[in-house]
Amino acid sequence: MDARENKQKEKGLLIVYTGHGKGKTTAALGMTIRALGYGWQVCIIQFIKGSWKYGEMDGIKKLAPNVELNIMGEGFVGIIDDNKSFEEHRAAARKAYDLALEKMQSGKYNLVILDELNVAVSLGLITRDELQELVGKKPEQLHLVITGRDATEWLIGQADLVTEMKEIKHPYQKGILAQKGVDY
Amino acid sequence: MDARENKQKEKGLLIVYTGHGKGKTTAALGMTIRALGYGWQVCIIQFIKGSWKYGEMDGIKKLAPNVELNIMGEGFVGIIDDNKSFEEHRAAARKAYDLALEKMQSGKYNLVILDELNVAVSLGLITRDELQELVGKKPEQLHLVITGRDATEWLIGQADLVTEMKEIKHPYQKGILAQKGVDY
Repeated sequence: MDARENKQKEKGLLIVYTGHGKGKTTAALGMTIRALGYGWQVCIIQFIKGSWKYGEMDGIKKLAPNVELNIMGEGFVGIIDDNKSFEEHRAAARKAYDLALEKMQSGKYNLVILDELNVAVSLGLITRDELQELVGKKPEQLHLVITGRDATEWLIGQADLVTEMKEIKHPYQKGILAQKGVDY
Repeated sequence: MDARENKQKEKGLLIVYTGHGKGKTTAALGMTIRALGYGWQVCIIQFIKGSWKYGEMDGIKKLAPNVELNIMGEGFVGIIDDNKSFEEHRAAARKAYDLALEKMQSGKYNLVILDELNVAVSLGLITRDELQELVGKKPEQLHLVITGRDATEWLIGQADLVTEMKEIKHPYQKGILAQKGVDY
């Protein structure tokens, strides 16, 4: 194998899980298991605080020190008990952005997951220019996973792998309450 | 909360990840992390041997003893280096089926994942009647996840939660070779 071929093999991918169905963050979590198999270091940055359920957070903590979870953001935006101003949400998202850039460029991780970044962008907490700047600064070897519904056309264009999780059926349609281990 | 409500809350879901995009098995793996957070016992049965990559297998082994992986089946069916007869594949799938039923009914697990069962059904290795029988025997409290492209209409009808992983973009479209940690 020549160096060029080898270099191509080592390229870190830009992966996007989007769509309105369940399984986006869950698939990103599944990738951390694969990464564990290689002894990789994984960094997860949650752009929307409260989007993860207790089971996920407690589970991921058991994968330390290989997997690091950073909970950022100021909780859901615009829902009934949201008493934060847009500026406060925006400042929190900016902090998550700065941390993401730092972690991506630290050279410490093989895989960085920016969870719900697409949502932060669609809410305007992260601008499209900032998204482009962040993705543009991905080191070549780093695998970067971005989750969240409503990925921008630009991001889809840039990505190496995009899966749309399409909701075919949701438990609420059958009148079933949220389930431990599935929904929280 | 009255007993009826409580009982409803404890219902184990039937979850289907289907479609042609990447992320089906990966999402099922992600659910094991959530399950880990609750100290649940998880059993995974792989219906198609060779469908998992080394990273996934090595990673999941690190989650023992909470997560148990059973590799069944006789490898991919009908591809160039497949020198097994249909009867041999069918017998292997039947063994996987028997093990799945045993594990589902053992009462030992909170979550059972039947990986690529949909593919075994679409290949005719497991009949549609057998699928119905198996799903029909799911204990009420057990969460059952079935993955694989081409889920049957019947299964989608039965399921509580169905996500179709739709391929929007695949690395091969960009001429990128399979990547460690992502594809194997």
